[in-house]
Amino acid sequence: MFRLTRTLNRLKKVSVLHNNVREQSVMTQKLMYTEYGDPMKVLRKHNEEINDNVKPDEVLVRMLAAPINPADINTIEGKYPSKPVLPAIGGGEGVAEVIDVGCEVRNFAVGDRIVPLKPGMGTWRTHAALSHNFVYKVPKNLGIVEAATLTVNPCTAYRMLRDFTSLKPGDCVIQNGANSACGQYVIQICRVWGLSTVNIVRDRENVDELKRSLLDLGGTHVVTESELRKTNLFKSKECPWPKLGLNCVGGQSALELMRNLAPGGTMVTYGGMSKEPVTVPTSALIFKDIKAVGFWMTRWTNEHFDSEDRSEMLEELVTMMTKGEIHGPAFQMVNFKEYERALSTIIGGGGKLGKKIILGFDSC
Amino acid sequence: MFRLTRTLNRLKKVSVLHNNVREQSVMTQKLMYTEYGDPMKVLRKHNEEINDNVKPDEVLVRMLAAPINPADINTIEGKYPSKPVLPAIGGGEGVAEVIDVGCEVRNFAVGDRIVPLKPGMGTWRTHAALSHNFVYKVPKNLGIVEAATLTVNPCTAYRMLRDFTSLKPGDCVIQNGANSACGQYVIQICRVWGLSTVNIVRDRENVDELKRSLLDLGGTHVVTESELRKTNLFKSKECPWPKLGLNCVGGQSALELMRNLAPGGTMVTYGGMSKEPVTVPTSALIFKDIKAVGFWMTRWTNEHFDSEDRSEMLEELVTMMTKGEIHGPAFQMVNFKEYERALSTIIGGGGKLGKKIILGFDSC
Repeated sequence: MFRLTRTLNRLKKVSVLHNNVREQSVMTQKLMYTEYGDPMKVLRKHNEEINDNVKPDEVLVRMLAAPINPADINTIEGKYPSKPVLPAIGGGEGVAEVIDVGCEVRNFAVGDRIVPLKPGMGTWRTHAALSHNFVYKVPKNLGIVEAATLTVNPCTAYRMLRDFTSLKPGDCVIQNGANSACGQYVIQICRVWGLSTVNIVRDRENVDELKRSLLDLGGTHVVTESELRKTNLFKSKECPWPKLGLNCVGGQSALELMRNLAPGGTMVTYGGMSKEPVTVPTSALIFKDIKAVGFWMTRWTNEHFDSEDRSEMLEELVTMMTKGEIHGPAFQMVNFKEYERALSTIIGGGGKLGKKIILGFDSC
Repeated sequence: MFRLTRTLNRLKKVSVLHNNVREQSVMTQKLMYTEYGDPMKVLRKHNEEINDNVKPDEVLVRMLAAPINPADINTIEGKYPSKPVLPAIGGGEGVAEVIDVGCEVRNFAVGDRIVPLKPGMGTWRTHAALSHNFVYKVPKNLGIVEAATLTVNPCTAYRMLRDFTSLKPGDCVIQNGANSACGQYVIQICRVWGLSTVNIVRDRENVDELKRSLLDLGGTHVVTESELRKTNLFKSKECPWPKLGLNCVGGQSALELMRNLAPGGTMVTYGGMSKEPVTVPTSALIFKDIKAVGFWMTRWTNEHFDSEDRSEMLEELVTMMTKGEIHGPAFQMVNFKEYERALSTIIGGGGKLGKKIILGFDSC
């Protein structure tokens, strides 16, 4: 209690709340579902008191921000391959502040910021008691959005650039859906690592504005799908043939991407926005030695939960972020109280606006 | 000359010819083409004297047998990715007998049997002077068909089973086009290595006879494409989910094959008999971690030309063959003089009879 009280004096902003909380109990609000289905129907807000003392190996945290990712929606719908045991709490990512620590916890202190390390821990809640083994400390100067969305998109970009082919400065990466949250991280990390990028976006109105924004992020080339079909970029040797292709679209877009890979190149699929499968010409597989593989961050995380590879990656990403070398996606913050509005925006296709919707807990 | 004469006394059958040859010259007949096109039109038989002494690093050989592979036809048509410089001699594989050796050649002697090591050396000819670095000695007790077809089909089967996934005895391999020449080697090598095989064949008349012959070769299970769709083989745990799939068909057949792969499994494409591409569902790539890759023996051979991996493979295959553990495909021997009949049989679709056509040079 002494540790908490001392810290609360520092954290003026939340001191009243925390004081109330720990003298009686923490009242946590959480978005739960007891059956899979339309999130608008199956998600319910539950109130629950956390009135025990925090357990020896746990940290008690209050959430600061948690995104609504497409995978969160699919999980609640029961359409995602990793199915949580019901009843479950929605949300997979977020950033929280430690407000109390168990007596055995040495590596965290009240006031620290943490992100949950395990997929599907349920972040759409105001407070949580979590094992200190399942959280990762992030520095306080890490942006709130970068912290809240640290464990999925930037990690996906990082791993896809690291794990499938050996890239050295000057090499080229080609990707479609380049303006996706992950695609934007790909552009930025490549820029930091000295890799050039060819970024494919769909033909659309105001495409010049989109191109500008991706070039500003550090993209080397931005082309529409129709421009790619007649590009002279590689034949003219302006750009080396890409050894790595990243595909989150599928269908014709993936095929065009593959056509521009260097012999022996690998296309990594991590999304399928077109809902069409990946089609690979037999001759590309046999004679051009093109490899079509997939990547799923959740599997990687489960398989490398407490690996050195993972801590090295998180450290490197956080460093790039705090140095201002890479930035989180454009976002729209919606108060946790208004979660229904946030969900309906996404389910209604608001995600296509290109802004990540993030639940903010400040005034809950 | 002394070495040759001594050997000729041993090789009674060819002594007169050789005697004539080496006292004057060797008259070689070769099937050449000066432009790409229909083999029936562009291939011409040329006679040429080899009247120099054999060069210091060369072996002079007379061909014994050379298959007509589909790739040989495609090469002459100009439809194959590896295009020989014209004019070129047809044929890529074969077995020959050494009839003279250059003064610097230590590792070959007259009477030895060899197979050419480089793809596209031109084996549709009666005699050839070849660098001793480009030929591989095979034992005389190796069957003539096994020798003549050593460097493509069994090597393809061997490498696909070795290079893409780590298999241990008891593991399962699934393949379509299981009755192809390569497919038959897959069955046999798997049997020797303690791997089980699920062999997919097209629905056809007399399928029971075909199934019987593949089971006799050592196939664990043989199923038609329609049987595969409703099979209980894997769910019942009668057979483990295959970690490796080998595809020489493409299209729907490849898709069905992939559906039965274990999570993390790899499908290697080495042919496309259906002329349809390989289609991979996005979810199989991302969530099931299925990998779609290709294999081309010619590329592997060029990249590993004089590697230890290659000599180890050839030695192991030849040992399996001379021990009678694996056998060459069913074949039909056609005299070299009748090459036009042989070609027209294949181009007319005779290859579908399932018999490899091999040119024999005995009485040329």
